[in-house]
Amino acid sequence: MSIDPSQQAEIDALRAHSTPTRRATVPALEEMLYQAIPVLDHGFVRVIDYMGDDGAVVQAARVSYGRGTRKVSEDAGLIRYLMRHRHSTPFEMCEIKYHIKLPIFVARQWIRHRTANVNEISARYSILDREFYLPAPEQLAAQSSINRQGRGEVLDDAESARVLDLLRADAMQTYNTYVHLLNENADGTPADPDRSGLARELARMNLTLNTYTQWYWKTDLHNLLHFLSLRADSHAQYEIRVYAEAMLKTVDAWVPAVAQAFRDHRLGAVTFSAPMLAILRRMLAGETVDQAASGLSKREWTEFQATLKG
Amino acid sequence: MSIDPSQQAEIDALRAHSTPTRRATVPALEEMLYQAIPVLDHGFVRVIDYMGDDGAVVQAARVSYGRGTRKVSEDAGLIRYLMRHRHSTPFEMCEIKYHIKLPIFVARQWIRHRTANVNEISARYSILDREFYLPAPEQLAAQSSINRQGRGEVLDDAESARVLDLLRADAMQTYNTYVHLLNENADGTPADPDRSGLARELARMNLTLNTYTQWYWKTDLHNLLHFLSLRADSHAQYEIRVYAEAMLKTVDAWVPAVAQAFRDHRLGAVTFSAPMLAILRRMLAGETVDQAASGLSKREWTEFQATLKG
Amino acid sequence: MSIDPSQQAEIDALRAHSTPTRRATVPALEEMLYQAIPVLDHGFVRVIDYMGDDGAVVQAARVSYGRGTRKVSEDAGLIRYLMRHRHSTPFEMCEIKYHIKLPIFVARQWIRHRTANVNEISARYSILDREFYLPAPEQLAAQSSINRQGRGEVLDDAESARVLDLLRADAMQTYNTYVHLLNENADGTPADPDRSGLARELARMNLTLNTYTQWYWKTDLHNLLHFLSLRADSHAQYEIRVYAEAMLKTVDAWVPAVAQAFRDHRLGAVTFSAPMLAILRRMLAGETVDQAASGLSKREWTEFQATLKG
Amino acid sequence: MSIDPSQQAEIDALRAHSTPTRRATVPALEEMLYQAIPVLDHGFVRVIDYMGDDGAVVQAARVSYGRGTRKVSEDAGLIRYLMRHRHSTPFEMCEIKYHIKLPIFVARQWIRHRTANVNEISARYSILDREFYLPAPEQLAAQSSINRQGRGEVLDDAESARVLDLLRADAMQTYNTYVHLLNENADGTPADPDRSGLARELARMNLTLNTYTQWYWKTDLHNLLHFLSLRADSHAQYEIRVYAEAMLKTVDAWVPAVAQAFRDHRLGAVTFSAPMLAILRRMLAGETVDQAASGLSKREWTEFQATLKG
Repeated sequence: MSIDPSQQAEIDALRAHSTPTRRATVPALEEMLYQAIPVLDHGFVRVIDYMGDDGAVVQAARVSYGRGTRKVSEDAGLIRYLMRHRHSTPFEMCEIKYHIKLPIFVARQWIRHRTANVNEISARYSILDREFYLPAPEQLAAQSSINRQGRGEVLDDAESARVLDLLRADAMQTYNTYVHLLNENADGTPADPDRSGLARELARMNLTLNTYTQWYWKTDLHNLLHFLSLRADSHAQYEIRVYAEAMLKTVDAWVPAVAQAFRDHRLGAVTFSAPMLAILRRMLAGETVDQAASGLSKREWTEFQATLKG
Repeated sequence: MSIDPSQQAEIDALRAHSTPTRRATVPALEEMLYQAIPVLDHGFVRVIDYMGDDGAVVQAARVSYGRGTRKVSEDAGLIRYLMRHRHSTPFEMCEIKYHIKLPIFVARQWIRHRTANVNEISARYSILDREFYLPAPEQLAAQSSINRQGRGEVLDDAESARVLDLLRADAMQTYNTYVHLLNENADGTPADPDRSGLARELARMNLTLNTYTQWYWKTDLHNLLHFLSLRADSHAQYEIRVYAEAMLKTVDAWVPAVAQAFRDHRLGAVTFSAPMLAILRRMLAGETVDQAASGLSKREWTEFQATLKG
Repeated sequence: MSIDPSQQAEIDALRAHSTPTRRATVPALEEMLYQAIPVLDHGFVRVIDYMGDDGAVVQAARVSYGRGTRKVSEDAGLIRYLMRHRHSTPFEMCEIKYHIKLPIFVARQWIRHRTANVNEISARYSILDREFYLPAPEQLAAQSSINRQGRGEVLDDAESARVLDLLRADAMQTYNTYVHLLNENADGTPADPDRSGLARELARMNLTLNTYTQWYWKTDLHNLLHFLSLRADSHAQYEIRVYAEAMLKTVDAWVPAVAQAFRDHRLGAVTFSAPMLAILRRMLAGETVDQAASGLSKREWTEFQATLKG
Repeated sequence: MSIDPSQQAEIDALRAHSTPTRRATVPALEEMLYQAIPVLDHGFVRVIDYMGDDGAVVQAARVSYGRGTRKVSEDAGLIRYLMRHRHSTPFEMCEIKYHIKLPIFVARQWIRHRTANVNEISARYSILDREFYLPAPEQLAAQSSINRQGRGEVLDDAESARVLDLLRADAMQTYNTYVHLLNENADGTPADPDRSGLARELARMNLTLNTYTQWYWKTDLHNLLHFLSLRADSHAQYEIRVYAEAMLKTVDAWVPAVAQAFRDHRLGAVTFSAPMLAILRRMLAGETVDQAASGLSKREWTEFQATLKG
């Protein structure tokens, strides 16, 4: 339900068209190009354009005249080395552009990543669609009792049905008011000729934060991976994590060697502080260390133990 | 009503305290420091900290060991020269930090200015107050018929009263649902012990876009002036323009020579395209030029005429 | 002489290869792709990759599902409107990557444009080639007497020959010392086995600022145009202006509608301050205004007159 | 020798002057303010201005109306938590401005950190001083045989004396040519009235990369720490590391709680990849793992072992 038939027809028209290019091309990403990957109940992620491939990272690291590549295994080794030692500039040489449809409260979290280019539909200019995010029942959970910014136990069926009814009712109500305030037919004529209607830039203030918006979002591979390392992480809010997971799949298709290095050296990596490293060395030398003997605060000790146990 | 007594007490405590510093200090801005300047019905702008003054621009332009200043008139002349020729880096050497309370739909427009540092209260973590923006009646206007993203005629009294009733009712309704969903007393205990409540990161989605949020916003003087040139402009939406105007007053107090140069060379300045300049020269040479003879499109001609007439 | 045969062979290999893509493709830029455009005596500019075209600007401005384009004339009109009103974000949706060879003193000026991705060859890691910039005789000029950061009269033939001899001799001398200090054969063995050689990261400090370096430089179209508006300007130093001019030609090929709008509304445009605009209106109303009556400073009046006369 | 008496007099005049302020003030940093910390043979680092303190990080994290601080130990705990979990935005709320004198080849490495504001003296506009970096003998070393971008063994006395003679002679020679080409007395009159002299923007190209330049460099605390984590690291080139170490001392004075958290959680921290973490867990469970059994590449294994041994 995220794409209507006329939109799909526009997408199909783009996908049907192919031209020759001398640029680096990635067949696995071409296969996905323009197609909407559904996310949440009405959202999506679409790759609109891309620049570069695994080889472009190598080419930039070597500032080469040609492709800069040697053997596949050597290239992958160089990419792992660059990733491990946080040599970030070669990864900035690849670029990707997405079209994304997402709830406004997710967009507000997302936009805090500043190193990207963004064009969002303007509700000063356009009328937003009657589409708002309603969580799946299994996503409705109570406040976490241990994490002040997380979720705890999932609601039972009766309670989640009741919550969804409340969310749906308020979203419908505020959207109906929005439409009433605008007082516009699809052709721009007034719905009720006896009222003047309210300017779009004002009427939009009545919408709830689960209303869907859309934007074009373009960034380089280095900044994309930074975004994914924070948002595909288990501590990220579910509603943004599902977008990050969809995008990570496009990265797998686009730059497989970079994606593998990212999973090993960033997404699955852990960092130990200097005091933690000292304790680790004592433990590897056979010593048994407890919190008291560690010198760590209770909180740091708990995090340390959690990391070691996995 | 934007600041409650306990908040004002915290502000007063900060204002009562003074320490000596070797840094450049601006008495006129010190006078404003921490104090809330009211904006809209519940919002405000507060200067929290600043770095540099008019002299710091001069000092950086001259890469000097001391203050870098000469006579006041020479410094002002240099500042005007830098502003006129868009030598932007010396203006980046001053920095200012604001605490701002603003409706979410304004925050969403504001955040598009990426070259700033931002810390916003998180509704994943905290519960937002029951405060939402309701426009003053004279700000309620119909959609502009000539500008697709602007306002036209102000609504009549009866209509504006009706619109305000609708906006208020929906905001109250959605906020009440929000509180109900959270199911939390002020001390964190459940309001209704028989319900589990909904996680904050989810409940927030039911709020409307006129709900107030707050952030710390810090930027350098160059980027602040860029923000002001766009947002203190008559084409900016009223609800963000009033913030820009309040901030422009703080710039007047902080860096008066820069502020004057900005008003002359940026805020009140106009740009003519190459074709427009060619026409201007013909006109100054005595020729009468109309649109047909100008070579400009109708839209460009209209804009050109509007600029010349003022 | 900027590209040697083995480098040209690598370039030719890239140019010989073509694959189909669903992405927007620009035949005129494909024709230039990878080929080195010579600049100065040993430098060049090469387009390595690009993303988007004129249509991508329109597509982003409309946040569309398909190409977003209507009639060519409507698209060009929209692009001109966006350019004129400094709606910069749609232009950020196109991206271009160059390989550039340039003297170090030019690179130092260039790098001040921070909104770009850069990978430069490292003289910690590699040995720089024996290539340094020697100006053409007609570019050797005395210090300007009116502009503290510009050139005045061109040197006469005898003097320019003498200057070139001095520059060449010093560059040769310091490069020879550099090679001597490195003490490395091409295969990495010591040239003189009785000496230990100096680390590359130290030996490089002996090179002069006209030594050539190379980098990959990638930026979006908005920031590229900002760079070009400053560096293709007549006030820019000749040695960076020629790079900007070469790049402007690639923009003409890549996004012709954007390039035309840029030439009209940015490169050839002029800005008048608020006081200047007031005077302009008096002049158009038939009044004769001189500096005394203008209220402008002498310097501002001179600049104003220069703009009006062209 | 990095500061001459007239410059020191300007600095002393600034230091002698004190005014009251309501802003957060840090006495330990005030004590250092404006004073040059010598670095290398002619370079220095001077703190010119600062905004914020440890408390400002806490204040921003809490988006508070007052200072936002609770007990010192709670604040330090919050700062450690933010540092550990890479919540970077509160650290962006502090800002610092330095005046730095440094060799050009160091400046070229430094400027790759783009998230900072920079004003450098312009050799188009000014004449650079006869000051160039000559390493201390114990810093002259051969190319490393194991690290393609590092130093190996220190040169013996005779060889280092010879190298310094070569570096000094070339720097003197090229600087003398530079002066000759400029043909300017201190008052701007021609040194030799029969020659026209060469424009400054051209003559500068004859200088070597160890010539000293100067800039004002301003950044926020988050980006400063990122700079320091890379440049105060043992893999950084000595000539930039000594600047980073001098700056780290100013951070200790300015924001002691942040500095301690940075040393523990960033500077002394280590990151293990997902495969390394898996091996670590096997080792802690008592298993003996060697490279063959680890699944790591030789290079990754060597790095892993080096980290564990320290």
